[in-house]
Amino acid sequence: MEFKFAKRMSYLKASEIREILKVTERPEVISFAGGLPAPELFPVEEIMEVNRRVLEEDGQAALQYATTEGYAPLREWIAKRMNSTRGTNFDADNILITHGSQQAIDLSGKVFLDEGDTVLCESPTYLAAISAFKAYGCKFREVPTDDCGMIPDALERIMETTERVKIIYVIPDFQNPTGRSWSLERRKWLADIAEKHQVVVIEDNPYGELRFEGEPLPSVKSFDKTGCVLCLGTFSKIFCPGYRIGWIAGDKSAIANYVLVKQGADLQCNTIAQREISKYLELYDIETHIEKIRRIYRKRRDITIQLMEAEFPHGVTFTKPQGGLFAWVELPPHINARDVLVKCLEKNVAFVPGGSFFPNGGKENTFRINFSNMPEDRLVEGIKCLAGVLKEAV
Amino acid sequence: MEFKFAKRMSYLKASEIREILKVTERPEVISFAGGLPAPELFPVEEIMEVNRRVLEEDGQAALQYATTEGYAPLREWIAKRMNSTRGTNFDADNILITHGSQQAIDLSGKVFLDEGDTVLCESPTYLAAISAFKAYGCKFREVPTDDCGMIPDALERIMETTERVKIIYVIPDFQNPTGRSWSLERRKWLADIAEKHQVVVIEDNPYGELRFEGEPLPSVKSFDKTGCVLCLGTFSKIFCPGYRIGWIAGDKSAIANYVLVKQGADLQCNTIAQREISKYLELYDIETHIEKIRRIYRKRRDITIQLMEAEFPHGVTFTKPQGGLFAWVELPPHINARDVLVKCLEKNVAFVPGGSFFPNGGKENTFRINFSNMPEDRLVEGIKCLAGVLKEAV
Repeated sequence: MEFKFAKRMSYLKASEIREILKVTERPEVISFAGGLPAPELFPVEEIMEVNRRVLEEDGQAALQYATTEGYAPLREWIAKRMNSTRGTNFDADNILITHGSQQAIDLSGKVFLDEGDTVLCESPTYLAAISAFKAYGCKFREVPTDDCGMIPDALERIMETTERVKIIYVIPDFQNPTGRSWSLERRKWLADIAEKHQVVVIEDNPYGELRFEGEPLPSVKSFDKTGCVLCLGTFSKIFCPGYRIGWIAGDKSAIANYVLVKQGADLQCNTIAQREISKYLELYDIETHIEKIRRIYRKRRDITIQLMEAEFPHGVTFTKPQGGLFAWVELPPHINARDVLVKCLEKNVAFVPGGSFFPNGGKENTFRINFSNMPEDRLVEGIKCLAGVLKEAV
Repeated sequence: MEFKFAKRMSYLKASEIREILKVTERPEVISFAGGLPAPELFPVEEIMEVNRRVLEEDGQAALQYATTEGYAPLREWIAKRMNSTRGTNFDADNILITHGSQQAIDLSGKVFLDEGDTVLCESPTYLAAISAFKAYGCKFREVPTDDCGMIPDALERIMETTERVKIIYVIPDFQNPTGRSWSLERRKWLADIAEKHQVVVIEDNPYGELRFEGEPLPSVKSFDKTGCVLCLGTFSKIFCPGYRIGWIAGDKSAIANYVLVKQGADLQCNTIAQREISKYLELYDIETHIEKIRRIYRKRRDITIQLMEAEFPHGVTFTKPQGGLFAWVELPPHINARDVLVKCLEKNVAFVPGGSFFPNGGKENTFRINFSNMPEDRLVEGIKCLAGVLKEAV
């Protein structure tokens, strides 16, 4: 049959990353493409133990339906931790457990966006946030962004000249795809702008815990006096992404609406996954685990950046992130990163071209490098190969 | 801050069931309210074993990101099983793993519904399907339904006089909330109607495996010659709902669009949950497990129906389902089931009033009884108590 799909389907296209990831499933491929954590750091033994404990102690409840809001002890832990690391003032009722922070983005679209509303985002921004929001028929305005975050004058001008701005979506810590972080001043200033214009800020923070150096910066939320900032978080980068457990935290009247749409979307998150994570947090020291991740990723970041500095040809620039999973490469304007990718794939090296990270298109001379997933020797091999291709192209 | 929510938020209200379920968390409450499986039947020991096996054999992959489509061996198992039990002709690529079949309903709305489109459904229908579809701004037309399914003349008339019918949503096996099943003729006839009008049928089937007597009937899909029927399924009722693993199965061009919206919605389902279920299916005989569930639920159905026949006052009628989890009670027209509920809750007995199962309202003199969740002695006590309240009310 000829299906008559909803209009929104014409806005959506398959995530380039997910398509490239399918190629990279071949073990010979050295992949800088995904946002994949290093799997050798997953605490497999410990998870076996927490599974056993959860099932022994309360197996029936762990396998049964549960509340939409999520497992109460886990929500409490998240609130306490955010209060200590993010300068927030939450309790469990400020938290809704979501199916990864990706679902929290999708639900944000569902809760706030009517067709024709506008989302402001950094330029570039997280690719899967673009597709999540786009499904609600919104427009995007990309706010010019430098190494300290969105540029104040530019955002002010856009706010004053754009109708129906409903959401400002930002990733202030080690942003995907650039690896850049916002300065303290810009964070405070964004909270002020949001308050002045009474617009919702979605502060996405999947990578904040993975700081390799320097002092942590306060969240945008910590400067929020009126509740307009909503925070997203996830266990994907500090624990395991396979669990698909994240959260949204914010003002209770907003969270109540998220709960409502989550009921219709999928009733609730995996009960046993929530309890296993909660049990892990009770039995083990996640700080030690995170510190281990930081140490490994820092080393991989160092190798990647040093090699890029040594090997990449003149005219190719890149960010030097202080944390997270990604660096962002800019080629001379006449070079299309998709062409470079084709040549790299022939040599079994993959990355994600940057064009898709711009919701309104452009900047095809950029690409994203993930440095967290590959062991050191393959990182070295991959960057050298990539440098070789770039030398020919530039 | 005064949040400016999307227009759709004004259509949605909290699920009455989820609100009642919060009350029923008190252990003294005898609950006929949820659609909860009997937790004492969850194979807790076996799940401990499959968790251990999955983590030992391929722990890193089990905790990592994976494809949006889902775990290939699980999709293959589902296709094969549907082919043998539902008369379909699927392979793994016809299947997308979803976060419970609830997510498959939500994604169906996202893939097919524009604001103002119409969904046709049985009257009454599954409450959380109403809220899932409603979020996409659709209208509902309830098709008059008898003990054999939607009434042909009524549906024909509605199809001819209603614009923008995009989806016909049905639960032909042991429907939620009524427990009724469609006759073979009506199934065939629905497939014909759908083909004639080129409209999508969503055939939801959470309970079909739980038949207590009589021969299984072929699916609507088995009569579908042009691909317009999409099938939903779930492990919630034959395994454990806490895993939140279900699926949608259908024509590959439709499934490709579901994959696209699932990418934006939450990237993928829980990796380890999918692998654990798959391993369970490999190591254990799920037929034996399902037969055990059937035996227990059949007994509970018998007790419930027999007691209702013996104890409920004259003028109260109810369905006698051949399978599934639910029976449907109709009171004399002047009695509001919500008033009955208030009196029952005083005596620590809960059920769900029927009004919410009608998307356009009405029939407040009905309620739903779940007979799967409570052990026999509490079933008896609960039905007797309910009968006492009804005797006073009628």
